[in-house]
Amino acid sequence: MKYKVLKMEGRAKRAHMETVHGSIETPVFMNVGTVAAIKGAVSTADLETIGTQVELSNTYHLHVRPGDEVVKKLGGLHKFMSWNRPILTDSGGFQVFSLADLRKIKEEGVEFRSHIDGRKIVMGPEESMQIQSNRASTIAMAFDECPSSLAERSYVKASVDRTTRWLERCRKKMNELNSREDTINREQLLFGINQGAIFEDIRIDHAKRISDMDMDGYAIGGLAVGETHEEMYHILDETVPYLPTEKPVYLMGVGTPANILEGVERGVDFFDCVYPSRNGRHGHVYTNHGKLNLLNAKYELDERPIEEGCGCPACQRYSRAYIRHLLKAKEMLGLRLCVLHNLYFYNKMMEEIRDALDAGDFAGYKKRKLEGLELTN
Amino acid sequence: MKYKVLKMEGRAKRAHMETVHGSIETPVFMNVGTVAAIKGAVSTADLETIGTQVELSNTYHLHVRPGDEVVKKLGGLHKFMSWNRPILTDSGGFQVFSLADLRKIKEEGVEFRSHIDGRKIVMGPEESMQIQSNRASTIAMAFDECPSSLAERSYVKASVDRTTRWLERCRKKMNELNSREDTINREQLLFGINQGAIFEDIRIDHAKRISDMDMDGYAIGGLAVGETHEEMYHILDETVPYLPTEKPVYLMGVGTPANILEGVERGVDFFDCVYPSRNGRHGHVYTNHGKLNLLNAKYELDERPIEEGCGCPACQRYSRAYIRHLLKAKEMLGLRLCVLHNLYFYNKMMEEIRDALDAGDFAGYKKRKLEGLELTN
Repeated sequence: MKYKVLKMEGRAKRAHMETVHGSIETPVFMNVGTVAAIKGAVSTADLETIGTQVELSNTYHLHVRPGDEVVKKLGGLHKFMSWNRPILTDSGGFQVFSLADLRKIKEEGVEFRSHIDGRKIVMGPEESMQIQSNRASTIAMAFDECPSSLAERSYVKASVDRTTRWLERCRKKMNELNSREDTINREQLLFGINQGAIFEDIRIDHAKRISDMDMDGYAIGGLAVGETHEEMYHILDETVPYLPTEKPVYLMGVGTPANILEGVERGVDFFDCVYPSRNGRHGHVYTNHGKLNLLNAKYELDERPIEEGCGCPACQRYSRAYIRHLLKAKEMLGLRLCVLHNLYFYNKMMEEIRDALDAGDFAGYKKRKLEGLELTN
Repeated sequence: MKYKVLKMEGRAKRAHMETVHGSIETPVFMNVGTVAAIKGAVSTADLETIGTQVELSNTYHLHVRPGDEVVKKLGGLHKFMSWNRPILTDSGGFQVFSLADLRKIKEEGVEFRSHIDGRKIVMGPEESMQIQSNRASTIAMAFDECPSSLAERSYVKASVDRTTRWLERCRKKMNELNSREDTINREQLLFGINQGAIFEDIRIDHAKRISDMDMDGYAIGGLAVGETHEEMYHILDETVPYLPTEKPVYLMGVGTPANILEGVERGVDFFDCVYPSRNGRHGHVYTNHGKLNLLNAKYELDERPIEEGCGCPACQRYSRAYIRHLLKAKEMLGLRLCVLHNLYFYNKMMEEIRDALDAGDFAGYKKRKLEGLELTN
């Protein structure tokens, strides 16, 4: 893996990364494919059309079904999904903590019941690394606990200490897996995850400790889970400076276009979020003049595309009136066109951000973009 | 409109038709788009990819929502859906008789309540022509009654007589609409519909009467609604000879690949059916070696495409194992890929039929195709 910062503007970074599955230009927005498919009938062929650089696959969902050993037998996620660009897999931790029933957290890992069939599953650092190795993603994420932003300081402190011990175990297991002959991707990367809820000192101390461990990259986890945007920006201001500039930084699960602009300004390279696909499935679409709700009656006779000049497959061919009709008639095609538009909008915004950084005008771009986005949003 | 029979083999016809929206090579299978979209998140861009010649739009569904006047204001169905090849609209009659509540049949037309909002709607020949003219389809269908195949002879006789009177009214109204300045498609074609349940003499008498009316084409309606395949083939054997050879013949709502082969042999040009899309949405896919149920556990690790050598967007890129996984996880993409495959399979079969007719080997082709299809089906 090679990661090279090409340009900086304040703390904002414009970087180029090379992986075994091709290069990534950052800042980048990863498109989320929960069960090895983007919700909304979007295929990997579609992702190529809308400019997706990195696909994100959730470990928990795919572990429960079809099972990671099935995916390994089928040659890993890239072959399974027919996608030859980078894939990042999460560790499964976040979903275990948010979706699974009856979970018990122990030093070894987490014991929980599948949300599909109730079967008992134990997942700890070693299991998560094994699963992600079976998937053969480009980037694996460390197995961590994501404590609630409302948790007590003493709980968060103990949790973060355990997450650090888990990171050591993740690294050891990943090194072992990457040295095995029968591992599909023996150059799998591992990113560590910074936690600490909204306690700056715990965040900073943890950032220092994991920075010393020389991981392939670092994520900020446990944000966008209930705290205010200002608290999130404050934590980024305090924490990112303690992560190495020469490594990629990933802000997990974030966010709105405005959140992303603020994150880039604070030194973040990687983002992911379900908003564009989830909003699309509800007929809410992004434009540079604010968000539109296509179910609104005023679009019934609107022959314009969602956004004039947009190069997405929906805007290239279909009108607001037609997409509104499809949504009202509950035709899947309506959801699909909205999701394609929104993902394209996010991907295109990241390209604009990179261009602005290249041109040394990120500050100006950010100001103009936010003015447009805030018109209705 | 020009319709030219290029070749015949027995009663089977290979023809070329020219319309204001481009040419149609027959025999042809029309792809059904109930509410101006093919179910399964399939777009008109997809239809171009899978070789669709004619799209079929249902009048009843689009009349109830968004309303044909909305479609007219938006420039007609072609512009609304972004589809520049031929479109056939049905008359709305079949859906009125099968879906609507509380219907009353009178000489003027049918009175019924919308299945969406319960509002009272009256539809007769004039209303149906007006709606289809507002849609500006390439081919409009006459407004008819489709009596049950179990109906009494006396009921069927009276119904068919009324359908003939309705056809006269349809023709008069269509001529008037096509002469208006503000009509979008002033070259809209009108096909008459033969009815008569499974009473050969009523069918033949009706075929003669409507043939005398010199319509642009003729459909056989009221089949594939409960009678056996043998009864259907018998009615085709008896009736098609009384329809003009130099006009296109359309067998409505039919059917399985085997039904289509039998229909072509009996002189049918046009077919439509929901089977390929409906089966696709249930994970049932067609191959030349029988139908597969992709939900079957035996496909869990099957890396082959649905059918080796198939040129559809699903088979070009995705495995049975992946599509099965998507179906199990209830991801819309799974349905979409199955629907795309099935429509491609039907469209491709029609192309093979045309090639076989061109080569004078339809009988041989039909025999070989049926042997393959019947392996599991």
